Amino acid sequence: MRLTRYFPILSWAPQYTHSAFGGDLLAAIIVTIMLIPQSLAYALLAGLPAEVGLYASILPLVLYAIFGTSRALAVGPVAVVSLMTAAAVSQVAPQGSAQYLEAAVVLALMSGLLLVALGLFRLGFIANFLSHPVISGFITASGIIIAASQLRHILGISGGGYNLLDIVRSLWADLPATNWRTLVIGASTLVFLFWVRRGLKPLLERAGMPAAAAAAVAKTGPVFAVVISTAAVWLLDLNAAGVAIVGSIPTGLPEPAVPRFDLDQWLTLAGAAALISVIGFVESVSVAQTLAAKKRERIDPDQELIGLGAANIASAFSAGYPVTGGFARSVVNFDAGARTPAAGAYTAVGIAGATLFLTPLLYFLPTATLAATIIVAVTSLIDFAILKRTFAYARADFAAVAITILVTLGVGVDMGVTAGVLTSLILFLYKTSRPHVAVVGLVPGTHHFRNINRHEVITSPAVLSLRIDESLYFANSRFLEDRVLKEVADNKGLRHVILMCSAVNEIDSSALESLEAINARLKDMGVKFHLSEVKGPVTDRLHRTHFLDALTGQVFLSQYDAATALDPALLSIPPGGEDVVV
Amino acid sequence: MRLTRYFPILSWAPQYTHSAFGGDLLAAIIVTIMLIPQSLAYALLAGLPAEVGLYASILPLVLYAIFGTSRALAVGPVAVVSLMTAAAVSQVAPQGSAQYLEAAVVLALMSGLLLVALGLFRLGFIANFLSHPVISGFITASGIIIAASQLRHILGISGGGYNLLDIVRSLWADLPATNWRTLVIGASTLVFLFWVRRGLKPLLERAGMPAAAAAAVAKTGPVFAVVISTAAVWLLDLNAAGVAIVGSIPTGLPEPAVPRFDLDQWLTLAGAAALISVIGFVESVSVAQTLAAKKRERIDPDQELIGLGAANIASAFSAGYPVTGGFARSVVNFDAGARTPAAGAYTAVGIAGATLFLTPLLYFLPTATLAATIIVAVTSLIDFAILKRTFAYARADFAAVAITILVTLGVGVDMGVTAGVLTSLILFLYKTSRPHVAVVGLVPGTHHFRNINRHEVITSPAVLSLRIDESLYFANSRFLEDRVLKEVADNKGLRHVILMCSAVNEIDSSALESLEAINARLKDMGVKFHLSEVKGPVTDRLHRTHFLDALTGQVFLSQYDAATALDPALLSIPPGGEDVVV
Repeated sequence: MRLTRYFPILSWAPQYTHSAFGGDLLAAIIVTIMLIPQSLAYALLAGLPAEVGLYASILPLVLYAIFGTSRALAVGPVAVVSLMTAAAVSQVAPQGSAQYLEAAVVLALMSGLLLVALGLFRLGFIANFLSHPVISGFITASGIIIAASQLRHILGISGGGYNLLDIVRSLWADLPATNWRTLVIGASTLVFLFWVRRGLKPLLERAGMPAAAAAAVAKTGPVFAVVISTAAVWLLDLNAAGVAIVGSIPTGLPEPAVPRFDLDQWLTLAGAAALISVIGFVESVSVAQTLAAKKRERIDPDQELIGLGAANIASAFSAGYPVTGGFARSVVNFDAGARTPAAGAYTAVGIAGATLFLTPLLYFLPTATLAATIIVAVTSLIDFAILKRTFAYARADFAAVAITILVTLGVGVDMGVTAGVLTSLILFLYKTSRPHVAVVGLVPGTHHFRNINRHEVITSPAVLSLRIDESLYFANSRFLEDRVLKEVADNKGLRHVILMCSAVNEIDSSALESLEAINARLKDMGVKFHLSEVKGPVTDRLHRTHFLDALTGQVFLSQYDAATALDPALLSIPPGGEDVVV
Repeated sequence: MRLTRYFPILSWAPQYTHSAFGGDLLAAIIVTIMLIPQSLAYALLAGLPAEVGLYASILPLVLYAIFGTSRALAVGPVAVVSLMTAAAVSQVAPQGSAQYLEAAVVLALMSGLLLVALGLFRLGFIANFLSHPVISGFITASGIIIAASQLRHILGISGGGYNLLDIVRSLWADLPATNWRTLVIGASTLVFLFWVRRGLKPLLERAGMPAAAAAAVAKTGPVFAVVISTAAVWLLDLNAAGVAIVGSIPTGLPEPAVPRFDLDQWLTLAGAAALISVIGFVESVSVAQTLAAKKRERIDPDQELIGLGAANIASAFSAGYPVTGGFARSVVNFDAGARTPAAGAYTAVGIAGATLFLTPLLYFLPTATLAATIIVAVTSLIDFAILKRTFAYARADFAAVAITILVTLGVGVDMGVTAGVLTSLILFLYKTSRPHVAVVGLVPGTHHFRNINRHEVITSPAVLSLRIDESLYFANSRFLEDRVLKEVADNKGLRHVILMCSAVNEIDSSALESLEAINARLKDMGVKFHLSEVKGPVTDRLHRTHFLDALTGQVFLSQYDAATALDPALLSIPPGGEDVVV
């Protein structure tokens, strides 16, 4: 059992069937065709040589097949993580240097070790502190930055920057140097790819192709673009006219190597590694969960951490860079019939084959084509609807999204996601620190107590019933003190205060002290303090203190019991809708 | 109305009576006698010249009388804030230098401005994030540090440090230089003061003095100690034998001066100023609230921020240092019959008088005596019972106290309080991220649903009822997804899942997306998803989304309605205590 938990391969490999093999193999072939241009393009985005993208698509996939729990997740380089890698690594070394390559490897190793550690200690819940709105905002802003950063390859100019301001500024400065031949290739690839995405599938279907096959062919659009534009550059000798090309990619598998340990570098990259790990994990696990649920299967998020961690460690030891599960790629894998993680291993074999035999053919591939495939891919990440949705639903979430987008675009990825997380935490704490407190009264003809401002209810002049809609903890305990004392000070005829605790899931030490203070102060005022509807675990804990002994009033099972015991006149109220005071 | 809010003096001064004047004056005389040695001693603790303590006890008290809302709070230098001042200021200037004095003034100004700003923007709730256990732990640890730091004056040696390790190390190094005459004065003052505190009041009462008068006389113990030890040094010429004395204190009121603005210094002191403000405010407001409640009065915490802020700004402009409301002093003020904040203004007149006429008499006052009064005062702050109490009641609170105490003692005051706040916030977030989820069933013979693990209840094989005891927000939304899918995956005959939301006070955007995901995944599995007992404000918000349209099941008013609608067999269950499955 324990072994199966840490090596999920043991749960499916022994029962591996012929039919599963067929499904996995077909899926692997389709994903391989999709992944070759993607891995080259994302390496470009990360500022790394093209072969690094291929290397990151071999060994990591094998390790994920052993340690991962998702039967459909396709691991490899992805857009957002590539951008984050570039932003982090460019801070320790100039792009194109050996140090830059080395830092990317170190980043993969740190990210892998962190993910494995989180998985072993079952700390995956940390990722939950990245709220959906923050992730959506971050992904949208990252998509914009990525698309903007690739424009320079479309224009054939230099440029740089890892936030929108820097990118636009450097594009503007270099604009006069635009290479029109590159622009023609880039722009026509863009038009072609957008058409493939929107128009090819319906066209193929109208031509009689089955829907699934049409969808699969439509996904191979980038391959056509690569073949056609490479041929064009080669035939027209465009690279001599200044069109940037991928150039020679070393043939052969990556050399295994042990990443270098340099404490200063590790400390510099630690924050980025943590963010890359968490963002990569969150994105990956949500795809995996969605796909697993479609087959009434489950993934184990803690084991997923180990699977993704192992993949990243493998990437580091085979000259790659940080990887995670890709969204589009996993959906294709699933739709194409992948039945087990073995599909990933077969994809790895496919990419290894490409690395061994295909790289010479990619010599004349224009970088503008790769940039166009990136731009088309990331446009699906950009989704401003989250702003509208959260604005309508919850302003706190809207604030978190807006801040995440603005800071990511204006400052950069690390600061953006950090600002988003802090904003959402601070707003959550703020909300819980000022909980909703309602004065409640009896709904005539029932045993229910509701807010006196929303319902026509019966109240007693000598009894004040307050319902607090939050657990009581340090951040709101003083608020409760103030609120109770304010209600009592405004209410001179009062003899009893009942605190209705149906929504109080916890009372911590601070809140206990506040309740003691409220009890003591009400006692000084000659008012008794009662509790009602206290939950079992909360009562258990209160019994371990002297609070219940000191309490001037009683603890009632229900609010109705409390109110009728303290004002028996309530018992004789006839049913009716009027606001009566007895 | 508005003017009265910001100038509480307008609410009491117009009705000021003869009898209130009598009470205020008597209280002021007693507090003045108590405050003279205290203000000298706390200035010593803060590493400042003795007169600075007196200066901080004049103008600040007048300003608090105008802007403060507590009728009993006695403002001035206090032990913990003096220690925090010393720890902060010693980082920018050496003790004894003009820069040190200047930095203390700047700290008072920054603290004052911050407090006023928090009050004007009604941000006093920020102080709530300091939990009671963290404050208790911090005050206890500060008391130990203060007592330890004063031992060097008792021994007549040099030494320093602002955490326990540094203090003990420096005491140990200088121990051979102990001045035995100083030690005799210090030790005998300590013994005398402890005896006054424990034994004098009962003795006076036995001698026939009324209890209140006996208590008041017992509080003046430090004055006797000051008089006797000063006389001893003078008569025996002990200062010539190496007994450290206060020496010449400038006679006259403080020169008004505008604090210097130096951006670097302000930035360096900003963190300490913020902590001093918050700690001072929290301590002060809890004393003020306790005393106000005794007379069924209330204080306004936001206006208290303005009152304390004004007092600190006044301190800065009259060569003082940070002040706040003192615990023991305020209780004495209250017990002695202070009726309005005017008592504070009268105390200020008393201290001003002392500054003008009394300072020459303090020339021979040994610092050992002042150190002894500090040690005796702070022993009442030390309370390790909080560790035992929180250990029994709530482990999270225990962890926060323990970390606060250890970090304060081992590293220092700033780090200690910061570590405590962060610990309590992280533990709170952790707890809410893994909420209590119970599978519930019907208690036979009732309409109540309770935890199947705690009660004998009736469940239906096709219906799973889950009660979640927490608001749903980003940090626990994925936990909920995992939990629901796990329950369903383990439970193949299932047709319906009901989420009972009686304790759900909010559903944020992330949780909404998780509910949508749960709904969609359950739909894929052929299981319907229902909600019950959703609160009004939560339902209102859900109606602004498409969630309820997409929901495969229904929203039921009560859990009983839901369960009986989905499994009508429940309606015919006879009352009984057996665990029945229908």
